[in-house]
Amino acid sequence: MNNKAVVLLSGGLDSATTLYFAKSKGFVCHCLIFDYNQRHRREIKSAMAVAKKAKCPYSLVKIALPWKGSALLDSKISLPKNQSLTRGGVPSTYVPARNIIFLSFAASYAEAIGARDVFIGANAVDYSGYPDCRPEFIKSYQTMLGKGLKTGVDKKSIRLQTPLIRLTKAQIVTLAKSLKVPLELTWSCYQGGNKPCGVCDSCRFRAKGFEEAKMKDAAL
Amino acid sequence: MNNKAVVLLSGGLDSATTLYFAKSKGFVCHCLIFDYNQRHRREIKSAMAVAKKAKCPYSLVKIALPWKGSALLDSKISLPKNQSLTRGGVPSTYVPARNIIFLSFAASYAEAIGARDVFIGANAVDYSGYPDCRPEFIKSYQTMLGKGLKTGVDKKSIRLQTPLIRLTKAQIVTLAKSLKVPLELTWSCYQGGNKPCGVCDSCRFRAKGFEEAKMKDAAL
Repeated sequence: MNNKAVVLLSGGLDSATTLYFAKSKGFVCHCLIFDYNQRHRREIKSAMAVAKKAKCPYSLVKIALPWKGSALLDSKISLPKNQSLTRGGVPSTYVPARNIIFLSFAASYAEAIGARDVFIGANAVDYSGYPDCRPEFIKSYQTMLGKGLKTGVDKKSIRLQTPLIRLTKAQIVTLAKSLKVPLELTWSCYQGGNKPCGVCDSCRFRAKGFEEAKMKDAAL
Repeated sequence: MNNKAVVLLSGGLDSATTLYFAKSKGFVCHCLIFDYNQRHRREIKSAMAVAKKAKCPYSLVKIALPWKGSALLDSKISLPKNQSLTRGGVPSTYVPARNIIFLSFAASYAEAIGARDVFIGANAVDYSGYPDCRPEFIKSYQTMLGKGLKTGVDKKSIRLQTPLIRLTKAQIVTLAKSLKVPLELTWSCYQGGNKPCGVCDSCRFRAKGFEEAKMKDAAL
């Protein structure tokens, strides 16, 4: 059995939980971490710390996007805060094609090292409304990989694994606890500070998850 | 009418012809050029020269892939030469997920600048057998973009344009001539030398095209 897997690791709650989930299922995980000049560069440090703690090798891919078009790439654009978390619509923190780009590197990495599975912590329940986190996106990406990759031609198509996609944040927090994810090492805040801001979407979804799971956030 | 377009430009015959085709149809073209540590880095210079000649702005994206897995990324792997050009199978010059990665950046760029169309010079007739040049791949990528991008949610999905996909190399050469493509500036050879090697797949497909079109290659 080929139990080699690539895991997209941002350093946040969801991707760290995804890594520990994949490990718990017996996968030998190779993490992929991105430096894309995100305003919350702090998460890269967290991602590397989580990978080390999990004793998994990682590759750091640097991407210099010559364009912006997102509050996560342009510190002049203010982050949404204190708005309804269920407001609908795509927020200013949307980065054009971010998961499309991340998954394209993951597919390349997986083929290069001979891994069959790619894990991504996409979540479509308590989330910011990014189109590239929805099940229908993942499904169509999977289909596309089957057409565009050598492994697709060879009928050994890469499988996208999204264990969190239909979980609430509270369920993710509970799962993380049961998997002994080092939550104190994770970083979710979109701001670039030393401490989580507590008011951006990402901080508030995280807080909501811990509150509903009746747990204290070890990272605070 | 939104006539802004992103054109993937490698510096070879096909992508240069695609750029001039898009221009001839009235598109205002923004070229996207990749530096991915390809062994034929010479093509980057050609791509920039072609963009300048066409009076189109370009963005250069640097990608440092931490893995190899292709003869185009690893000079220790020999290039296929003097084999049958119709041998079938995926050759050693296949770069895992290359067009999947290129198109993901093109989609991001297009959304960031508000372009609706993305042109790629993919060709599935006289080609090396790369799965990511086939019509079924392009079609599934288009579907995926409709699910994963904000423009998809907004029902203004990005359109992938592949004007060369069903042309023979001879037809591409003839089209290039009629569009006044500066063929002398283009570079197709996979080797990293100062002159085209004449024996790699890419050189031979190009030569076959010029021969069948009864034209002299201005780049030789």
